[in-house]
Amino acid sequence: MSSVQLPLTRESVLEAHALIKSRIHRTPVLTSTTLSKLASPGDTNVNLLFKCENLQKIGAFKIRGATHALARLTDEELQKGVVTHSSGNHAQALALAAREASAARGFNIPCYIVMPRISTPSKIAAAEGYGAQVVFSGSTSAEREAEVRVVQERTGALLVPPYDHAHIVLGQGTMAIELAEQATEDFGMPLDAIIAPCGGGGMLAGVAVACNGTGVRVFGAEPREGADDAWRGLRDGQRVDSVKSLTIADGLRTPVGLVNWGIISDKSYVSGVYTVSEEEIKLAMKLVVERMKILIEPSSAVPVAVALYNEEFREEIRNLARGKDVNLGIIISGGNTTIDKIIELFGAKN
Amino acid sequence: MSSVQLPLTRESVLEAHALIKSRIHRTPVLTSTTLSKLASPGDTNVNLLFKCENLQKIGAFKIRGATHALARLTDEELQKGVVTHSSGNHAQALALAAREASAARGFNIPCYIVMPRISTPSKIAAAEGYGAQVVFSGSTSAEREAEVRVVQERTGALLVPPYDHAHIVLGQGTMAIELAEQATEDFGMPLDAIIAPCGGGGMLAGVAVACNGTGVRVFGAEPREGADDAWRGLRDGQRVDSVKSLTIADGLRTPVGLVNWGIISDKSYVSGVYTVSEEEIKLAMKLVVERMKILIEPSSAVPVAVALYNEEFREEIRNLARGKDVNLGIIISGGNTTIDKIIELFGAKN
Repeated sequence: MSSVQLPLTRESVLEAHALIKSRIHRTPVLTSTTLSKLASPGDTNVNLLFKCENLQKIGAFKIRGATHALARLTDEELQKGVVTHSSGNHAQALALAAREASAARGFNIPCYIVMPRISTPSKIAAAEGYGAQVVFSGSTSAEREAEVRVVQERTGALLVPPYDHAHIVLGQGTMAIELAEQATEDFGMPLDAIIAPCGGGGMLAGVAVACNGTGVRVFGAEPREGADDAWRGLRDGQRVDSVKSLTIADGLRTPVGLVNWGIISDKSYVSGVYTVSEEEIKLAMKLVVERMKILIEPSSAVPVAVALYNEEFREEIRNLARGKDVNLGIIISGGNTTIDKIIELFGAKN
Repeated sequence: MSSVQLPLTRESVLEAHALIKSRIHRTPVLTSTTLSKLASPGDTNVNLLFKCENLQKIGAFKIRGATHALARLTDEELQKGVVTHSSGNHAQALALAAREASAARGFNIPCYIVMPRISTPSKIAAAEGYGAQVVFSGSTSAEREAEVRVVQERTGALLVPPYDHAHIVLGQGTMAIELAEQATEDFGMPLDAIIAPCGGGGMLAGVAVACNGTGVRVFGAEPREGADDAWRGLRDGQRVDSVKSLTIADGLRTPVGLVNWGIISDKSYVSGVYTVSEEEIKLAMKLVVERMKILIEPSSAVPVAVALYNEEFREEIRNLARGKDVNLGIIISGGNTTIDKIIELFGAKN
């Protein structure tokens, strides 16, 4: 993408929000008496406020970053199109953002999505459904990145990375601006803290930047099963740059990006990262689906599981209380799963 | 209940809304580009606006009617408590409404729920969880009603019926007031019509009363599989007073109540009732869960299925268009299902 980058400040997130808010949904914030009770440690009362990005366009928060990244590019820069490598939510996000930017700017912005040849047909169809051109590659990171370069040489398209770029981070951060407003205005519950899932870290970093200086504490959540790279990185004082994991939280099988690590490893931005087991993720997912009546992907259940089951985190929240309720925002990042996947996860055989 | 009943007018629905709105959620209205496209017949553009009562307290609209019914009773009338026979959403609704009314009025309002002995433990636990006293009975209507009379004789509790009472109807109608406001204010899409599921008919009648005189057309939706009693009643000009059906839309296995039939059979209130097959209900349910990322019970999929698959209804909508978009509100009545039930409905064996 363009080399001009906005600084990672709350001011930039507010600017990003002003730019994109007419193109995205202001997703609902839901509450649940049952889950709030389960998240309340001892005699501390916790009010959970769920920011439902599963009800966002394309079913995930990724549309925020992609829309913002494109909004920051000039007509000239967009003329030759955009490209990314992703088989997940970022692919659909970029495809839809490119289609909407084409309509807004009055010329066609080609969008190329590099996907492994073995991607499921529904994911390929989804990207194509938003008007993207899917280009196939091998399955390793190296093969996918090589194919991106081939596309760039052929077309001149700009790479819009899935998470490790300031404009993506600032776009994702906009959800925290809305959540804080909604918590105060709609519920009379000003936020004390937010917990968000951490994969590549674009969202967690964005939320942390958005909250910086506001007094709202920000926490990250990871699957313990191999994808706890941020947790390990913080423990060892060094970013972990690869992840090998089969966690059911498949959106989080990614190491934290370099830009994002700068934010996430800074205690004044992110107060801590907590991990949960696969079983805890499943339990939390079931509770959210059945009690809150929303469909979420396993990655979205990770921060919920931390709030319900991680004793260290619960102790941290209890310390925040100081004799009053704690209002804890939880980011529900997406809902891109299917009934077949639910059956696979929760069916009799499992 | 008390014999003083408000008239079934839009004015009464507005009064009901003013009374209950601080006690219920103003549930979100969601849209879906994919489903709107599927609901658009030929060259007519239909915008679907989904009123998500599955995200209501207790996971269903029934809290509206129960809260309103209690709000209309005096302290003296409530002193000896309330009773109903239901194993479904109305049981939980009355239990929660009684608990909240107890807190508001400063004295305890006992709530008795008569349930068949064979009810699933989770439903019994849910009613008890809201503080109700569960009283067991046989499974037939006659046995349940007899047990209600026993409770009434013993305690003096007032019966709050699940659907066939003016105050219940008016309470349910409040969702249409909100939906119409949200469609205009949040989406700039003033409603042309609303379609709602029809079981006992309390909600459909309430919505019809709320819309009366506003120009918004109201339609009902039923499962064709045995529970099409309103459809048959309209065809034959006579209310059908019993239903025997194993439709998966289990919330709609009820004949239309007498009060409600007066409204539903009047063309100036309800423009028509349309039916769909079990397979269509399942298809619509899957689409809503997977595309809109919300959990709905099969009954809620019935009006969606009508909008997508009933050719007669689609023709009706096309006639409403007159060269412009049609903004169609769809009532998502509830989400009281479980992952186990989803597996049962959609698992490999089925």
